[in-house]
Amino acid sequence: MFDAAVTPAVDEDEAALATPFVKCLVRLIRAQDANGAWEGKPDADLLRDFIISRDQRRAMPIIGDPDPDVLWRLDKFYAAVGLAIEERCGLMASPMMEISHEGFGRVLLTAGRLVVLSRTVRDVHRFGFETLWKLAAAGTKLAGDAIAAIEAYPDVARA
Amino acid sequence: MFDAAVTPAVDEDEAALATPFVKCLVRLIRAQDANGAWEGKPDADLLRDFIISRDQRRAMPIIGDPDPDVLWRLDKFYAAVGLAIEERCGLMASPMMEISHEGFGRVLLTAGRLVVLSRTVRDVHRFGFETLWKLAAAGTKLAGDAIAAIEAYPDVARA
Repeated sequence: MFDAAVTPAVDEDEAALATPFVKCLVRLIRAQDANGAWEGKPDADLLRDFIISRDQRRAMPIIGDPDPDVLWRLDKFYAAVGLAIEERCGLMASPMMEISHEGFGRVLLTAGRLVVLSRTVRDVHRFGFETLWKLAAAGTKLAGDAIAAIEAYPDVARA
Repeated sequence: MFDAAVTPAVDEDEAALATPFVKCLVRLIRAQDANGAWEGKPDADLLRDFIISRDQRRAMPIIGDPDPDVLWRLDKFYAAVGLAIEERCGLMASPMMEISHEGFGRVLLTAGRLVVLSRTVRDVHRFGFETLWKLAAAGTKLAGDAIAAIEAYPDVARA
């Protein structure tokens, strides 16, 4: 099956890196770099482990326990969604994750008394995106959905 | 300091066991008894580990990592709050816990898009109540607060 996304254009990567969501994600990752070891690294390098090509995914076991690195990336991904929400509407959206050791679970983002995002996650050991652009699109969509919920129930989100 | 609760009357225990919240808690605990080992045990015995007297608490270390048993009791306690909410208003309130290995964390109960209960928990290794009555009162109060939130935002709780 041919898919243009398998060989992403460089300018698509550039566009992805310029999205507010990916900027939030990069900011969160760089915030962990207490010793400046990643200072010279471009953003795309910091996000490299978020990208899993089709072939890489195919080579992974169907069932597997997530390792701490992939749980860290999942955590940063949803924290970045929360940060993107905050940038757009000023309300802090705090994430909460409950993942079993088998990589199944639930992620919640709440603002005030409102659940702005609720996702069941599975196969966490294979968490990743085919391209930077797909990573950007997924995070941007989640933040957008959350903003729509906040706009639907503004008083609850501020309660 | 003298406190009547240090020597609880038996009828106070009886009253506690008759509250809807404690009945929910007992039901959840008995549901785990797949082999019927606890069938002959009275309810008060099943709840014994939830009760920590002042002297017992004083003997516990201030800082400590919660063991699986106390995490299990914390889980059952909040699940019982969720069940008591469901009994009273027909909406399922699902609990979510995020507890660090040091025993600090957060518990959320959500119904639909509404956060019906949000609690920061700490010192989980010392989780317990002085008397059965205090256990009943704590759970009943949490369920009552959650019901009040649902009544304040009924459409969000059903969203």
